[in-house]
Amino acid sequence: MPASALPQTLAETLRERFAERFQTGAAIRAQHGATTTWIENQPPDAVVFAESTAEVAGIVSLCGEAGVSVIPFGAGSSLEGQLNAPRGGISIDLTRMDRIVAVNAEDMDCVVQPGVTRVRLNEYLRDTGLFFPLDPGADATLGGMAATRASGTTAVLYGTMKDVVLSVEAVMPDGRVIRTGHRARKSAAGYDLTRLLVGSEGTLGIITELTLRLRGIPEAVAAARCSFPSVEAASSAVIGALQFGLPFARIELLDATTVNAVNRHSGQGLPETPLLLAEFHGSPGMVEELSRSFGEIARDYGATALDWTVDPEERARLWKARHDVFWAVLGLRPGARGISTDVCVPISRLAECIAAATERAEALGLVAPIAGHVGDGNFHNLILVDPQNPEEMATANAYVGWLNELALSMEGTCTGEHGVGQGKRPYLEREMGPALDFMAAIKAALDPGNIMNPGKILPERPGGSR
Amino acid sequence: MPASALPQTLAETLRERFAERFQTGAAIRAQHGATTTWIENQPPDAVVFAESTAEVAGIVSLCGEAGVSVIPFGAGSSLEGQLNAPRGGISIDLTRMDRIVAVNAEDMDCVVQPGVTRVRLNEYLRDTGLFFPLDPGADATLGGMAATRASGTTAVLYGTMKDVVLSVEAVMPDGRVIRTGHRARKSAAGYDLTRLLVGSEGTLGIITELTLRLRGIPEAVAAARCSFPSVEAASSAVIGALQFGLPFARIELLDATTVNAVNRHSGQGLPETPLLLAEFHGSPGMVEELSRSFGEIARDYGATALDWTVDPEERARLWKARHDVFWAVLGLRPGARGISTDVCVPISRLAECIAAATERAEALGLVAPIAGHVGDGNFHNLILVDPQNPEEMATANAYVGWLNELALSMEGTCTGEHGVGQGKRPYLEREMGPALDFMAAIKAALDPGNIMNPGKILPERPGGSR
Repeated sequence: MPASALPQTLAETLRERFAERFQTGAAIRAQHGATTTWIENQPPDAVVFAESTAEVAGIVSLCGEAGVSVIPFGAGSSLEGQLNAPRGGISIDLTRMDRIVAVNAEDMDCVVQPGVTRVRLNEYLRDTGLFFPLDPGADATLGGMAATRASGTTAVLYGTMKDVVLSVEAVMPDGRVIRTGHRARKSAAGYDLTRLLVGSEGTLGIITELTLRLRGIPEAVAAARCSFPSVEAASSAVIGALQFGLPFARIELLDATTVNAVNRHSGQGLPETPLLLAEFHGSPGMVEELSRSFGEIARDYGATALDWTVDPEERARLWKARHDVFWAVLGLRPGARGISTDVCVPISRLAECIAAATERAEALGLVAPIAGHVGDGNFHNLILVDPQNPEEMATANAYVGWLNELALSMEGTCTGEHGVGQGKRPYLEREMGPALDFMAAIKAALDPGNIMNPGKILPERPGGSR
Repeated sequence: MPASALPQTLAETLRERFAERFQTGAAIRAQHGATTTWIENQPPDAVVFAESTAEVAGIVSLCGEAGVSVIPFGAGSSLEGQLNAPRGGISIDLTRMDRIVAVNAEDMDCVVQPGVTRVRLNEYLRDTGLFFPLDPGADATLGGMAATRASGTTAVLYGTMKDVVLSVEAVMPDGRVIRTGHRARKSAAGYDLTRLLVGSEGTLGIITELTLRLRGIPEAVAAARCSFPSVEAASSAVIGALQFGLPFARIELLDATTVNAVNRHSGQGLPETPLLLAEFHGSPGMVEELSRSFGEIARDYGATALDWTVDPEERARLWKARHDVFWAVLGLRPGARGISTDVCVPISRLAECIAAATERAEALGLVAPIAGHVGDGNFHNLILVDPQNPEEMATANAYVGWLNELALSMEGTCTGEHGVGQGKRPYLEREMGPALDFMAAIKAALDPGNIMNPGKILPERPGGSR
């Protein structure tokens, strides 16, 4: 079947079943392909706004019969082309499945539909004393965060989606609905299908409900900001603090170029040197003690300025610097697109990795500022490129390949949290070796028709017609 | 092929290759089947003591060609018949693969072979200031703990094997060796094969190397012991303390019968009422504060006696009560075998679940004392039975089925940490519903010859010849 050919009968059936919730306009289709990055937009043939698990199952069954691809859609904030439709097909928009089904405060868990965003969940939870701790920056949907194994600034303390998803309900490629577990805090009941679906980017099943672990809102939160003479000094301070056992809730690094971009974007007037942003959660006495310890360690590593605060408004202003990074850096070169790297290495290699990356990017003449979740060993360059300039794209891609190889040589990974999608697919084979064949075998067994988000994570199947 | 028929040519090849490391004596074979529980021992046809990944891969390849089962063996401490050989085959004893390959203190991780036990790893780590935090009671091998997704007394703080295994090397059913990841703290690089193998009980691959997260040895440890008038009062105290946010490192419950058994076994002279054992890890000030808070909460729920200590020797004596439970309870009825239940329910249902279980066991006339990791909602009855008494076995099995059903009705699981093996297989289908078909599809795709630990976790394949 040629790409972008939606069989007429399927289109008619879907239109009949979903009326105005079945959409084929160009704008809405483009919006449901990859939009956030440099990766070329490949729109689906149509978009269906699903409102229940049964509807998702129905669409998947119909598409399975017709051999048409299905691509689940949440907030559209993924960065590696996860939402593109290289073979056309149906984008299943899950944003209307946005019900918070249950909050079990005593058990510190909740059940949500996939279209609930993390910000809305936290607004909803506010009065319970509980919160959902992961923060990937974007106000992503929880279904999307699970599907891409997202994490973000708080992973250093609270882990990634693999750690907070207790179980999911999912529509599988044959249209059947499964539940991978229930609400027990731990389970040894067979293969871990929960964590197989988390991070599978919609290629094995579509998550239609999630049971999530929650945390108690910390009694006190302290945030600190400190400037360093070099990126190495800043990363070494983090390593030192982690080895001392400081339980960061967040520990973020911005390099000087990123700080410059943030100043231009939101006029924060920060010193334009490498900056660490830290946060501690706990009792008032504990966060004060931790902030003091962090200050001492930071000064040992050459921190030149250090502020800390427990005031919520000041804290929000401080973190705005971090949350603005993506758009602030894009603003450094209007019209440019951003290619985000996502390597993650063992902490002991982090300073070396960042230093080498900075040097290499400069030598290649790339504008590629760095921001990172350094407590996890994970950082991002946002490489500013003109997608119309093939030479520049080639240089940027050579840099990305070089950096991924460097991370691998340090026993790291090419993707700490953005996933594989289309963009990291060329690097996965090198990283996983023969393990990739077993991923492909699982995909082939669970989705023999290859209808679920094809062209993502895995290499194309030899001889595949779709 | 009839069970227990090891093809002559395969036996000869293995004997030639492994000399005295290939063993077929009845005693050694029986030792390599299930030995710790009521489940009937089904010995393999032969045992091979492997010394390298290449050797394991060689055995698996040979067995794959001959259609002979392979069963990995560690410490032999699994409880659900995971080591039995219902179709005969080769037990691959991994205890000689006991090298600690690397300790990366700066990164707080280590690389070990599967035959290293947790106690030996912790002895080895002592001078690094780090430790491996999981404690399932038995001095299990780390490979076995990963294969069964073990946890134990410290899971409430440190999680289960799914949380501490960063990646594994494994020999897959076709004899190929894969690595599921490297040493990055987090990764979004494709399907989570690490967590698919963790808990797969040797049915998908044989773990030949593990990269594990370590923790800093806490500066101070405080342990507390307190008695309660009833099991409900004790479980309610735990729920209250968890909701207050107390970060238990351990929180264990023994019911009165279990305390009685421990007193008989090791003469601790404990008051024979339900007992909670708690532990806190942190700074000296912090553990003192936590112990005090716990004491206040415990008294609110009716605790009648409370002792706490930071002295390592006293602490060891206190925990001896917990570690002795399995053998102490067996001692209540000499000659009996123990059937261990393993339900895990949401914390809010725990008191109700334990109360119902106690009442039911008494009504059925079963001796079935309770010990549990109550902070996880996980508890065990150890039902004392005479396997020669069919009526008693039927009563015990009816109780187990009833309890598993109760746990499921409370959104829990039949197995929090012991795994499925043979013993929990009848209950998994009910618990997982159609999800079980997808587990079976993964098994069939990765191990089409069904040579890897057949007859465990999944239902028998219809029409299967082995």
